[in-house]
Amino acid sequence: MNKKDIINQIKIKKSFLCIGLDTDLKRIPKHLLQYEDPIFEFNKQIIDSTKDFCVAFKINTAFYESIGSSGWNSMEKTLDYIPENILSIADAKRGDIGNTSKKYAEAFFKNLNFDAITLSAYMGIETLTHYNSYENKWCIILALTSNAGSSDFQTVVDKQGIPLYERVIKSSLKLKRNNNIMFVVGATNEDNYDNIRKIAPDNFLLVPGVGAQGGNLETVSNKLINKDCGILINSSRSIIYSGADKNFAKCARESAKVLQNDMQKILKSNSII
Amino acid sequence: MNKKDIINQIKIKKSFLCIGLDTDLKRIPKHLLQYEDPIFEFNKQIIDSTKDFCVAFKINTAFYESIGSSGWNSMEKTLDYIPENILSIADAKRGDIGNTSKKYAEAFFKNLNFDAITLSAYMGIETLTHYNSYENKWCIILALTSNAGSSDFQTVVDKQGIPLYERVIKSSLKLKRNNNIMFVVGATNEDNYDNIRKIAPDNFLLVPGVGAQGGNLETVSNKLINKDCGILINSSRSIIYSGADKNFAKCARESAKVLQNDMQKILKSNSII
Repeated sequence: MNKKDIINQIKIKKSFLCIGLDTDLKRIPKHLLQYEDPIFEFNKQIIDSTKDFCVAFKINTAFYESIGSSGWNSMEKTLDYIPENILSIADAKRGDIGNTSKKYAEAFFKNLNFDAITLSAYMGIETLTHYNSYENKWCIILALTSNAGSSDFQTVVDKQGIPLYERVIKSSLKLKRNNNIMFVVGATNEDNYDNIRKIAPDNFLLVPGVGAQGGNLETVSNKLINKDCGILINSSRSIIYSGADKNFAKCARESAKVLQNDMQKILKSNSII
Repeated sequence: MNKKDIINQIKIKKSFLCIGLDTDLKRIPKHLLQYEDPIFEFNKQIIDSTKDFCVAFKINTAFYESIGSSGWNSMEKTLDYIPENILSIADAKRGDIGNTSKKYAEAFFKNLNFDAITLSAYMGIETLTHYNSYENKWCIILALTSNAGSSDFQTVVDKQGIPLYERVIKSSLKLKRNNNIMFVVGATNEDNYDNIRKIAPDNFLLVPGVGAQGGNLETVSNKLINKDCGILINSSRSIIYSGADKNFAKCARESAKVLQNDMQKILKSNSII
């Protein structure tokens, strides 16, 4: 999926919503447990009911790995079920040396055929090149996250006055296909938004932390939006666990619709649609 | 597995060798491809032939994930096959926020029952607490790695004169069970060894990069060794791919034995055995 495709989808759906499939056996409605693959059944119904309102689905690999090889299998089935015009993101936060990252890239881009993967750059930019070598695939690099611990290292300023997250962004943009790079920027870091848009004016940003973690959709969006929209706002639990009974998919649809409606207003007021 | 157990094993086996099971279908001997699970068959024979000479086996998750749910299954079987007195390490380099790291900890410590996992601290120390809450389980945190890209961020010095890797080590040592924390320190970073042993005198270090990546076993070991030994030297490809035909396991045994023999001398000259 290339950048133009993503922008087109945003305009068609009037949405920049990414829905996180953090699917947890302990939290899905009980009646689903009778299915052969309850995780997949839950995801299938969530995808069916929300796909009109989002432009991306993000699969959090931890939730699938925590149930072993059958979880991995549910992930494969879920990925295959995501419609082709919706960006599929492996929220895997991988980061390892050359020959290993080559294998992770194979795992997520070739065998699983995700459109995008989240990555950690701690081990250096060369560790991202294998992922970056795939055409029309996306590297989403951790820059400035929304959790409390993000200030432990990410905002530490070096001798040249550059915070670590800025160094990560600038170095990542030296990669060959830097058009296909997104950054994870939390919805709780407003003070740094001007700087982020200064150093990465054109890149898409994946923004977690709206809602549950305290970020405000309108404020965050209006500060980070660019001419292409350039942001994907992620919401996971507050959508997929909107309802706890047989109506869960309908409830998720309603929650997604509310966000999409707000996003439509933001896109209009920024003259993107 | 607690620290005393690891030290005991080092003394019994006269070795601080960790063998990395970076098992790749493209590199294992062709005759194994007739088995139902060639990856597991290769690992089984490698474990049988080398277990007398090593104190840890490290499973590189990328190689298993790259073949999907069946690869995950081979990993489960391999882990079950590792003898109880040998430390089992998931080389997974995970790193994510609270509720997600809880799931990864469940995946690797509870469901898979690994003794240890490699982790990235980029998202902050709070993201490590779930792993650290398991008794007798080990967090192996990326500090200063052996690859070329390690200088992109890890050695960048902040305004207070502290390189990032040092900040990572110091912050990690504030975790509750800091006795159960190891650090990844590459065999190509000799200039920083004195500093590392100054800030983490008692912690075990997992050291990749000896051999293939240019680190010298004797030099590295003599600089990093402490009163408990305190180092695990990892070797992956140069052991497991020592032989390419039906004798592969015997060849791996010979390679492991050579390293163990060198390690025995180092342990003796440092009065640990």
